[in-house]
Amino acid sequence: MFKKILIANRGEIALRIIRTCREMGIKSVAVYSTADRDSLHVRFADEAVCIGPPASKDSYLNIPNILSAAELTNADAIHPGYGFLSENAKFSATCEDYGIKFIGATAAQINAMGDKASAKETMQKAGVPTIPGSKGLIKDIKEGVKIANEIGYPVILKATAGGGGKGMRIVWKDSEFEGAWDSARQEAGASFGNDGLYLEKYIEDPRHIEIQIVGDQFGTVCHLSERDCSIQRRHQKLVEEAPSPFITTELRRQMGEAAILGAKAVNYEGAGTIEFLVDKHRNFYFMEMNTRIQVEHPVTEEIINFDLIKEQIKVASGVPISGNNYEPTMHAIECRINAEDPFNNFRPSPGTITNFHSPGGHGVRVDTHVYAGYTIPPYYDSMIAKLICTAQTREEAISTMERALSEFVIEGIKTTIPLHLRLMADPNFRAGNFTTKFMETFDLSE
Amino acid sequence: MFKKILIANRGEIALRIIRTCREMGIKSVAVYSTADRDSLHVRFADEAVCIGPPASKDSYLNIPNILSAAELTNADAIHPGYGFLSENAKFSATCEDYGIKFIGATAAQINAMGDKASAKETMQKAGVPTIPGSKGLIKDIKEGVKIANEIGYPVILKATAGGGGKGMRIVWKDSEFEGAWDSARQEAGASFGNDGLYLEKYIEDPRHIEIQIVGDQFGTVCHLSERDCSIQRRHQKLVEEAPSPFITTELRRQMGEAAILGAKAVNYEGAGTIEFLVDKHRNFYFMEMNTRIQVEHPVTEEIINFDLIKEQIKVASGVPISGNNYEPTMHAIECRINAEDPFNNFRPSPGTITNFHSPGGHGVRVDTHVYAGYTIPPYYDSMIAKLICTAQTREEAISTMERALSEFVIEGIKTTIPLHLRLMADPNFRAGNFTTKFMETFDLSE
Repeated sequence: MFKKILIANRGEIALRIIRTCREMGIKSVAVYSTADRDSLHVRFADEAVCIGPPASKDSYLNIPNILSAAELTNADAIHPGYGFLSENAKFSATCEDYGIKFIGATAAQINAMGDKASAKETMQKAGVPTIPGSKGLIKDIKEGVKIANEIGYPVILKATAGGGGKGMRIVWKDSEFEGAWDSARQEAGASFGNDGLYLEKYIEDPRHIEIQIVGDQFGTVCHLSERDCSIQRRHQKLVEEAPSPFITTELRRQMGEAAILGAKAVNYEGAGTIEFLVDKHRNFYFMEMNTRIQVEHPVTEEIINFDLIKEQIKVASGVPISGNNYEPTMHAIECRINAEDPFNNFRPSPGTITNFHSPGGHGVRVDTHVYAGYTIPPYYDSMIAKLICTAQTREEAISTMERALSEFVIEGIKTTIPLHLRLMADPNFRAGNFTTKFMETFDLSE
Repeated sequence: MFKKILIANRGEIALRIIRTCREMGIKSVAVYSTADRDSLHVRFADEAVCIGPPASKDSYLNIPNILSAAELTNADAIHPGYGFLSENAKFSATCEDYGIKFIGATAAQINAMGDKASAKETMQKAGVPTIPGSKGLIKDIKEGVKIANEIGYPVILKATAGGGGKGMRIVWKDSEFEGAWDSARQEAGASFGNDGLYLEKYIEDPRHIEIQIVGDQFGTVCHLSERDCSIQRRHQKLVEEAPSPFITTELRRQMGEAAILGAKAVNYEGAGTIEFLVDKHRNFYFMEMNTRIQVEHPVTEEIINFDLIKEQIKVASGVPISGNNYEPTMHAIECRINAEDPFNNFRPSPGTITNFHSPGGHGVRVDTHVYAGYTIPPYYDSMIAKLICTAQTREEAISTMERALSEFVIEGIKTTIPLHLRLMADPNFRAGNFTTKFMETFDLSE
């Protein structure tokens, strides 16, 4: 087992990892930018090394400084957390070159899943359902209509050079195809100087549902059931839960098996997540694989009473996993508490927390690096806490969450707590009736 | 289901009950003495009524004031918590007279278990093992030796009028009997003016192990496994855990069955606890029954993912229980955080908490009514928080507890946190090797 782990991250996830290190009897090294001197992750680590100024590129993304800190402190492993260098193939490879174990995916695994097109191809070959579409660019309307009929309407035309919704058109039937094709080409050409289009099945009312997997160094992979992360705004998740209210035992089995096939296709080791879109008919399609721990991992931990960070560390040190898949018997919900004003376009609200008191009691978990008197720096992600509530049923978990949110005292800044209270009270949310489009029409007026 | 519950208690247990009321959609009424205005139990209740001055007899034990508060606020039930009026038969009966449901035992049940001698007799008749001994007073040495040989040495002679260890003698064999008899009689006569003696089997190296039971209004009783509360000082529990490291599956089954027999013997409804002494040969003997929720109930909640306060409320409103006994699959430990100086004879340390920060993360639960800026009044119990840590194994639960204790910030007063850190590090505690005498020899030097 490792003797000392450097955590190449900041904030709540750095503290999260330090906690497990302490519980495992492993020494921890925090790294921090000059803006993060007062974070709890610095206080609670056994050692702490300043790695640079506030800008991420000079500190949390600064590979030479982080490796120097690891050598200086004699750390034998590095845990990258999420974000920053967690899916950086070069960093993973450089750690290995230095003889420091990277607690995450290998460079080959990161590369295999990092490029979307090749990841999709790998998954397809492994037998994981992917979103049907044209193989590359479409040469003309005739070919486009043919493919659209093969995969079935609705379809979506996308600019190959596209982004931000430009050059995209949803097509519902043959008669609409020509008009959509012309306007998408025109827009793509004008926007990107490249009017090439490809085509995919358009997933109506999709849910974002992801499967947590763990693989060991001996080729065993298991899944720990799913998380539903459909409540998101501009692709930023706000609320996550496990299990999904939309998923049946049979669909969980199918998605779990698909996730395991996908992970095995890249000889995956460690904790990873396969993200799927699930349509209203409960067809599921591979979206992407995250080769790292996720922000929302605690909901999985709580429903199966299992420490995923501990599992990552054990697997990285060569311990084999049991290989059992998990069927959830509890329900957990996580609300991300951000220093933002949810009713003013989520404007960031950095500043000093003048009063702070965590909710407590049965079924309540709080993960945070902040405290009364802490000043939130303006340089990083606005998430300051995760509140996770667990109960025997989804209805009870929502009640516990409402109770805990109402107890949570964070003064001096704006937070997303009032939004979460409104979300928990929403009849559609309570009924489990939501898709990734839920927040688009949600009342965000003050 | 009840519409509004008045909580006839204070501090953490009042807040604990208010939290569950909120989660169940039941309105809560806090009562408070003038010394407790600033407690979180007052802030988080839907309504709060002042019931008198600081002295408990004038406030938390003041039945007319509490019933007035219930009538004033139109509460349809009263939860008494633990201590105070929770095992007061008159209060239970008066509530019923007023048409207010007492969420606890009936007067008959409280009386049946409140008198130690009659409780022992009831249990004996029900087939629950009790400590063998003489039936009343012993008339002479000859009879004493005969009884001692029937039940087996060691035995303990006790003064019928006794207390505080006076007039008590442990006897290990026949040849010691006469000397012990004479000196105990002499001491009893001198101390109490009554030299009557009785005799009981002396339990060597006992553990305090209790079984949590729940009964409903339809005669169903189940047990929720045991708690080990052997770590105590002067009969005050310091650390509790579930399951007990000393108990086998077979012994759990036997003790659980005995507890159910005992509860059924008094037609017990609601949550209750049967306390046993368990000797080193794993013989168990009924000690007493507590007809209320216990301080240490959270360790049971955490290992079976179950809200015991919710169960109490449901049972009191007439909901039947499932009747399933529970076999634990997790391990939970509770440390009682008291405002005391553990290394100066546990001297109380009331005062203002200048800084407060709860530990968090996976496996950590905190139940407390205090916060930064709160002033602990000197009038009541010194317990200010309960820290409960849960993991898959006892070893991991201890590690989580050590980690959480080291993160817990309570400044401005002395607390028992340093003692708990020392306890968790103790090799005998870690090995599960302890009895109720453990603290007598524990190092309490500064």
